[in-house]
Formats: sequence, C-alpha cells, structure tokens
Amino acid sequence: MLGALALLDDVDITAVVTVADDGGSSGRLRREVPGIVPPGDLRMALAALAAPDDRGELWARTFQHRFTGEGALTGHPVGNLLLVGLTQVLGDPVAALDAAGALLGARGRVLPMSTVPLEIVADVAGVDADPRDVRRIRGQVAVASTPGRVRSVAVEPADAEVCPAAADAIAAADLVILGPGSWFTSVLPHLLLPGLRLALEKTGAHRLVVLNLAPQPGETEGFSPEQHLDVLSAHAPTFRIDTVLADTDAVALPGRLSAAAGDRGARLDLAGIAVPGAPRHDPPALARALRRVLDRL
Amino acid sequence: MLGALALLDDVDITAVVTVADDGGSSGRLRREVPGIVPPGDLRMALAALAAPDDRGELWARTFQHRFTGEGALTGHPVGNLLLVGLTQVLGDPVAALDAAGALLGARGRVLPMSTVPLEIVADVAGVDADPRDVRRIRGQVAVASTPGRVRSVAVEPADAEVCPAAADAIAAADLVILGPGSWFTSVLPHLLLPGLRLALEKTGAHRLVVLNLAPQPGETEGFSPEQHLDVLSAHAPTFRIDTVLADTDAVALPGRLSAAAGDRGARLDLAGIAVPGAPRHDPPALARALRRVLDRL
Repeated sequence: MLGALALLDDVDITAVVTVADDGGSSGRLRREVPGIVPPGDLRMALAALAAPDDRGELWARTFQHRFTGEGALTGHPVGNLLLVGLTQVLGDPVAALDAAGALLGARGRVLPMSTVPLEIVADVAGVDADPRDVRRIRGQVAVASTPGRVRSVAVEPADAEVCPAAADAIAAADLVILGPGSWFTSVLPHLLLPGLRLALEKTGAHRLVVLNLAPQPGETEGFSPEQHLDVLSAHAPTFRIDTVLADTDAVALPGRLSAAAGDRGARLDLAGIAVPGAPRHDPPALARALRRVLDRL
Repeated sequence: MLGALALLDDVDITAVVTVADDGGSSGRLRREVPGIVPPGDLRMALAALAAPDDRGELWARTFQHRFTGEGALTGHPVGNLLLVGLTQVLGDPVAALDAAGALLGARGRVLPMSTVPLEIVADVAGVDADPRDVRRIRGQVAVASTPGRVRSVAVEPADAEVCPAAADAIAAADLVILGPGSWFTSVLPHLLLPGLRLALEKTGAHRLVVLNLAPQPGETEGFSPEQHLDVLSAHAPTFRIDTVLADTDAVALPGRLSAAAGDRGARLDLAGIAVPGAPRHDPPALARALRRVLDRL
C-alpha cells in the first residue's frame, strides 16, 4: 500500500503502524529494552517509503539487512537497532522515526499507533477438543499462527494513548485507508485503541477499506471477502466505511460483497490490483485504483 | 586532532585509523562476526568529523550512543552496529565508511589502515619476577593495560595489505600527521604494516609528529617526550620526520627534545596546544599550530 501511495503525485502520506509485534527481532528487543516500541513494522513502513534514488535505496537495503554471523546480533535488521538507538538518543519514538525518515528520504511520515508498546490478545476457538471452547491467546505471533479460529481481538493496555501526531494526521486527512494486511493483528488494532477509533470515526476524511487478496492461514483461514467486513463491523460497530476496494479476481461472488458493502453504506470498487497469478498487490495497479478514489473526493 | 583539522579551511582530511581494537564493543563484534574490521576507532574518527550542524550533531550523538537496557545489545555504540551492517550490505568496509561519512556530513574521509582486522602483539618486560624477562602479550587491550613496560610492538598478520585508498591518500598528501594518541597501540601501528610504512616513507608530504601531553599509564608510563621519539625510531629506523610538535608546558627540557628532534633532521615546534590545566589538547589552539605548519609548506 505504501509503495502504491508513493507512486502518486501530490499525496501527503502518513502511515500509522501497529506496535504490537512480539516476534523475531522486535520480540527480542522488547524483552531487552523495557518500554521500547517494537520497531519491526515501523521499519518495514519506512523502507517502503524510501526515496527511489541511490541514497534511499542504500539505506532501505541497510535498514532491512539482517546481521549475519553468529552471536547476539544475528537476525536483527539494522534498521530495528537504529530505531531503538535513535529513540534512546532523542527520548521520543516519533522524533526517532522522523530522523530515520529523513535519512531514507522517505516520501511520507511513519508514526506508531501509540508511543507505548501494545500486546494483542485474542479469543480463539477450536484449539481444544471441544470446538465451542474459547481460549485467550496473547501476543501477535501466537495469534497470527494459532491453529484455532480467531473470534475477536483486543489490544492491551486497553487505555493506551493514541500517538497525538497520528490522531492529528487522521483529523486532517482527505482519505484514510485500512488494509490490506494481517486482518486481526495489523488492520483491526487501529479500531481497538479507543483514541484511534475515535479519530477514525470523527475525521472528515473518506474511509477506504482495501481487502486482502486471499485468506491468511491462522488469522483468516477460509474467510470470504464479506467475512473480512463482518469482523471489522463486529469489532467497531460505529465505524463507517465509504468505499471497499477489492481485486476483481479475488472476489468469487461480487454481488454478495457489493451487498455487504452496501449494508454498511459503502460503495464497492472492484479493480485489477493484484500481480497477475500471484497473491500480492501490484503497486502501479493499486496506485491507479487509489487515484480513481481520490479523483472522486 | 581531527577536531582541530576540521576547524581549518581549505583542508582535505583523510583519517587513517588503526583496526586492532579487541576490547569492549569492537571485541565482542570481532568474536561474533568473523573477518569484520573492528569499528570502534573508525566510529570515533567519523564522529569527530561530523558536520557542525543539527543533522551532523544528531548523528554523531547517535553513533556514539551506547545501547542502554539489559541484554545482548547493551554497551554497543549504535555507530559500531551501523558500520558492521553497512559493511555487510556493501561488502566493503571503505564503501561503508564513505556511506556513514555522508550520513554524518563528515568533513573528511575515514579509512582503515587495512581492510582486514589486525592484532597487536607486544614484547613486555617487568611482568615476571625477573625484570629482564620479556613476555609476549597479545591484543590491544592487554597491551594498553599491561603492568609491565612495553619494549616493542608488532601487528599481525605481519603482511596484511594496506588499504589501497589510504596508501593513495598518503601519496597525494601535502602533510601527514602521526599522533597524538596511545603511542604503542594507535600511533606506532601505522609504521608496523610494511605497505603503510612504505607509503609514509615515500610520500612527498611534510611529516609531522605530534607528541602526547603526558605519558599514558600502561603504555608509556614514565616516558619523556624524547623517549616517544626514541621508540618511534626504534620501530621505524628509516622513517624521516620533518617537524615535531609538542605542547610548551608538557616539555620539561625543551633543549633536550629539540636536540632529539634535530638528531632526526626534524624541527621542534613548541606551542600552547593544551586546554590550560587539563591533560587534553585544545582543538582551536591545535588548529592554529597546524595552520602555522601548513603555512610554511
């Protein structure tokens, strides 16, 4: 999505990123540096926005490079360590992200949902012998890889403050976009933090939901496109959607999805936005679809 | 020294830095990332050359910041990890240093003596009961902190290739400067690598040796200024010095030092180049003394 937005002229991009990652490098850093906002998803967003020139390309590669060798550093992406270091120097993750963004020549701003680290908790069915038993599972990695069916998710601390700059950006936006991404662990969390949901509900911006191309094993196994909208509504009943964008070939029953969108007052846009034959979005095609949404505002 | 040089206009600075550090963060990185050039002294040189503006100041602070917290990263300066990461991405420590220098807006270039890590070995007397017994000690930390008297030092591998860009910079220089610094472990190593000594002997540049303000416990305990020149000559008998610069107040017997310099064909420059009352050089005063040397070329 960020790669697509970066292809558009005259667009002022702010990425508001989940900070609930507890796996891999981010998980190790959370355990070792108390209070640190996990940098992994923030780093990915920064790299996606890096300037398309030699300097931006070098630093994006370096941010994404995982230390080789053997020992304590192995597997940490350089950018994760740099974001932690900048945060310690500047005393503020937002200032650290802005400094890293300047280094990458980022075509937009990357902000954390919250300036405190979050944890995802989920109620999951089908883990135990009796499929009606629901069990609470903690942590993004555990939720994203559960063999059960996720019924609902929440973030903790439940009253974590939204990053003020993120709320400001949403209030000032012409267009806010949710998705695509891991539905329960990356997309829904924005509607689970009260301050962020309020900002998304109050903004005068057009609200666009972009559906995934396929269900994700663990998170949304077997989900139809409509079911993605269902869980979104179930978690945020008062959040209004203006447009639902989906890839034409990823929707088996467009009439049903159009009706599901219409039930929520939203219009369905179908467009070819995937790489043909591959389960990933095509940034230029997605950019063209976004341009059409913007042109209608 | 680098801070002083950076104060001078119209000076094109190349710092050629020892890569034999085996202590602290650099030591941990050497053990964990085979073949890595220890970044510590290189990082220090880069930070000293950082641009005197907001960006340079932020990145110099970040390079020098040591990770707090508990765990595997604690104590590593951010800049050390960034230099290792850039080296892995670019496959070349010189390209990595140039990229880091660009980030800092460095007022000059920082190069390693050699693109392979070096080890310092020293013959040290006075460690054993019989003060005539000489023992071989390995590693910069061990040598710099020995309770004995260092008789001689060498670097291994003895045939390590000099960094070609460093040899080129020395060949093209108008002025080469040795010192101040840890005499046996930071200054002498440049004369111990055959390719580097050859470059220093063959260059048409003026050769300036800047003496330390005081003996260093462990390395040069009890050394007079003349003895610093003596060990330099003992390790590199064919290396010619043009000027010896020393702080006026740090030289008890200027006549003797002047004679020692004269024996080597060198002129003695005495100037107030220390912070009054403190055992460290004053960059502006040192810059003025260097300007006088440059004006005589």
